[in-house]
Amino acid sequence: MKGFMFPRTATGKASLLPDPPWHYSGAMLALEYRTDPTAVAELLPAGVEPADEDPGAIAVVWADWQACSDGFEELLDPIRAQYKEVFFVIRCKFEGNHYSRCVYIWVDTDYAMVRGQHQGYPKKIGSIFLTRPVTVGRAGPRLEPGGKFGATLAVYDRRLINATFEITGRSGDAGFVNSLPMLHNRWMPTIEGDGSDSLDELVTMSAYETEIGRTFTGSFTLSLGSSPVEELDRLAPRELIAGYWREVGFSWTSGTTLKRIPLLPV
Amino acid sequence: MKGFMFPRTATGKASLLPDPPWHYSGAMLALEYRTDPTAVAELLPAGVEPADEDPGAIAVVWADWQACSDGFEELLDPIRAQYKEVFFVIRCKFEGNHYSRCVYIWVDTDYAMVRGQHQGYPKKIGSIFLTRPVTVGRAGPRLEPGGKFGATLAVYDRRLINATFEITGRSGDAGFVNSLPMLHNRWMPTIEGDGSDSLDELVTMSAYETEIGRTFTGSFTLSLGSSPVEELDRLAPRELIAGYWREVGFSWTSGTTLKRIPLLPV
Amino acid sequence: MKGFMFPRTATGKASLLPDPPWHYSGAMLALEYRTDPTAVAELLPAGVEPADEDPGAIAVVWADWQACSDGFEELLDPIRAQYKEVFFVIRCKFEGNHYSRCVYIWVDTDYAMVRGQHQGYPKKIGSIFLTRPVTVGRAGPRLEPGGKFGATLAVYDRRLINATFEITGRSGDAGFVNSLPMLHNRWMPTIEGDGSDSLDELVTMSAYETEIGRTFTGSFTLSLGSSPVEELDRLAPRELIAGYWREVGFSWTSGTTLKRIPLLPV
Amino acid sequence: MKGFMFPRTATGKASLLPDPPWHYSGAMLALEYRTDPTAVAELLPAGVEPADEDPGAIAVVWADWQACSDGFEELLDPIRAQYKEVFFVIRCKFEGNHYSRCVYIWVDTDYAMVRGQHQGYPKKIGSIFLTRPVTVGRAGPRLEPGGKFGATLAVYDRRLINATFEITGRSGDAGFVNSLPMLHNRWMPTIEGDGSDSLDELVTMSAYETEIGRTFTGSFTLSLGSSPVEELDRLAPRELIAGYWREVGFSWTSGTTLKRIPLLPV
Repeated sequence: MKGFMFPRTATGKASLLPDPPWHYSGAMLALEYRTDPTAVAELLPAGVEPADEDPGAIAVVWADWQACSDGFEELLDPIRAQYKEVFFVIRCKFEGNHYSRCVYIWVDTDYAMVRGQHQGYPKKIGSIFLTRPVTVGRAGPRLEPGGKFGATLAVYDRRLINATFEITGRSGDAGFVNSLPMLHNRWMPTIEGDGSDSLDELVTMSAYETEIGRTFTGSFTLSLGSSPVEELDRLAPRELIAGYWREVGFSWTSGTTLKRIPLLPV
Repeated sequence: MKGFMFPRTATGKASLLPDPPWHYSGAMLALEYRTDPTAVAELLPAGVEPADEDPGAIAVVWADWQACSDGFEELLDPIRAQYKEVFFVIRCKFEGNHYSRCVYIWVDTDYAMVRGQHQGYPKKIGSIFLTRPVTVGRAGPRLEPGGKFGATLAVYDRRLINATFEITGRSGDAGFVNSLPMLHNRWMPTIEGDGSDSLDELVTMSAYETEIGRTFTGSFTLSLGSSPVEELDRLAPRELIAGYWREVGFSWTSGTTLKRIPLLPV
Repeated sequence: MKGFMFPRTATGKASLLPDPPWHYSGAMLALEYRTDPTAVAELLPAGVEPADEDPGAIAVVWADWQACSDGFEELLDPIRAQYKEVFFVIRCKFEGNHYSRCVYIWVDTDYAMVRGQHQGYPKKIGSIFLTRPVTVGRAGPRLEPGGKFGATLAVYDRRLINATFEITGRSGDAGFVNSLPMLHNRWMPTIEGDGSDSLDELVTMSAYETEIGRTFTGSFTLSLGSSPVEELDRLAPRELIAGYWREVGFSWTSGTTLKRIPLLPV
Repeated sequence: MKGFMFPRTATGKASLLPDPPWHYSGAMLALEYRTDPTAVAELLPAGVEPADEDPGAIAVVWADWQACSDGFEELLDPIRAQYKEVFFVIRCKFEGNHYSRCVYIWVDTDYAMVRGQHQGYPKKIGSIFLTRPVTVGRAGPRLEPGGKFGATLAVYDRRLINATFEITGRSGDAGFVNSLPMLHNRWMPTIEGDGSDSLDELVTMSAYETEIGRTFTGSFTLSLGSSPVEELDRLAPRELIAGYWREVGFSWTSGTTLKRIPLLPV
């Protein structure tokens, strides 16, 4: 049977995901702040430690993507290419190396959701908005000091994040929290539901052919809402660090399994 | 870390899925027909054979659900309880036993999508509609002979299924294609993208505490559309068998792994 | 040019609305309560007075509809037939007669929105959910005492109404607030934007061939949220009256203009 | 009662539309072609004639907007600022002057829909996608010759327009079909449904403070689909003229009523 992802068929055409590599171009807004370090530490699996320095640092990141397979046909049928996501990133340490780690993430398409699951991103579906910069007219910020953006997330019809960002100047980087190789878990409970996992892996990955565009830093505001099925209120800001808006493109093809705990064959 | 499904956290509250059991109540429309048996056989993984009898039989099934966890709180916040799905089911044989097998399925919420992945249903997101019966007024069918229903699926803004169903009489069953225990694969490619799978299981499962309500049979029409990323045109009807509409409720808690091909530990 | 509503064309086929009559079948949940009578009175146009008795009475009503034209073809293409709405209704008096009046309303399809504008309902788009009763299984209330429903509204990704309803018994009616002929305004500002209206009418209407199904009364909870572009917090409950769930079908074809203030010809 | 549009209230805060002026910034893709001139002429109301020259010329235009009121607060809550639209424009002549006229249009938000109704645009809701240019990475066209875009429309889950555009060079203009002041009808049938209109106006309007950004011309493909409730198949291309992509910003505050046919007072 063929197909990178389910459904697998004789031709592979129906696979929810095309074969990697996958290409991405878009804009990212990263808001870095400090929260209670114990709230960060409690999101790490056994064997993974908090970062040595600044262990309460966390980033919430919006991304407004166009993405496609290596055949590029999605770009001419853009319902299959455009999506947005928002995610929380922390840093951690495993076997002596520091990593970034996505602990919560929402996207607005199914293919991005499952692509993320393959990569260990714990993706749910949400409603995500991010102001776009404009070059003409009055209905948007220009990419210059004073340019103001809004960024929001809603899940199950509840507004969970309200943020604003104002450019103060150019920047040579986009922060330090989401800048390391990712360290993710890939989990799937057994169908027996006995508390064990059929899939239990620790993986790492990085993008390649990353191309950085215009990058700005600025000040921001952030408020986190509550929901019966989310825990964002545990990540309340104690101190804001800085915000960053940047254009970025990259490709992704694969990662590396750092640890796998297989069950016995059946 | 706690949580039945990702994201796993210290409390488990943010898990995309609550712990099973999960309860379902709703209506199902099953349209059974015969297609080219080779088109059915090509959707079976190695080691799984076509059904001994009527190997070209297939069903396309719409379901309009309310579903909840064992805490029932979703029923008071119905955005977390209501969803629709449409799926294609074939029959097959494994180690001498016959099974039903879902080969394509679309749902309209993320939690139903991932719940399905846990069960081996190859779920994507789609836009699904099914006429509802009414008890008063003129804007819908009554549950009696002559009652007419429409049922549709669209994916990526393309209408892929158009069907109509007309009740001809009461029925004691809802067909034979979707009536056996399910035989599903659970797959997740390795993060290395080397063509091997980190998760490769053959599982079976059944509902329990199934409660059957009013059940009707009838005639139907069915037309399947095409898409750059679907293969429904390979499943064109050769002969229509019968349609069935029924009310059904059930619970689900777990299944059984029939075969697991683990990779080595890392 | 033909067509009941825009766009008007040579054939009329593209009209956003088919010719009346329009038929409706569905379920309604009405929650009646008392708010500050001045908050009700301020929603009345000049010349319309508060109701003589119980002038602070108000109802918030969810409806889960199937609707169609007199050709009934929408019922076989249910994306064109199914929608939900939630609305606030008050009572008022005009020229000695009492009326019901819808002051706020949200629906989830464009055709229902414009159909409402034709009728003077001030419709916006929202995200609306209402628990459905079930006949089998555990995932929903039965239509009997103890059956519990949830009902919600979100607009612009903000949850604006959370309500629950629990059946206490059968009822012969569905309350008194939404039970009178409707008294609505139809307004369209001049394109000159000079503060005058090109369309300024006071209209009344009623359904016909109303068919009432099972009807229940019960207790309820209601909480109203806030938004930068809504005013629901002005309608906070002071005293709950009663809730009602009922099945209802009806048809609608036209109303009567009570007062029209035309501008001069151009 | 206050409020530019319904619902009108004591404060005006809940009005579906804020007071003009409204500001817009975005990108437009216009594809100009020739169709059967009789198909254009049949979309003109009595008293309006086809254009003197090239009467079969027509444009289909996608727009990807950010828009806001004069208070600019929507730009910090972008769910209230971002929307897309696609529309068909023809040219016509009234009392000796030539105009552009929008004959069909779909948008994806309620406020844009009703804003358009105020302006005489016959807006429905649709699902609209347009490829965005990128500055980095491989997932999108650059604004230079060879840059390829896709543009689509779906309504009621049916794909109605598929188009592609490829930049061939810079352009000093964006075509001639959508470049004149608009000539629109504003219609609302009487509540009596007797075939007469309570609102029957011919209006004209133009944007102001228009700011033009980068503009490109190119070649394109266009295919139009069919639907039970649309008439796009009457507008099939006979000859393609040219495509244009441009950045544009403008403001809008009001128009002029050219003709009003009022009913008598009631």
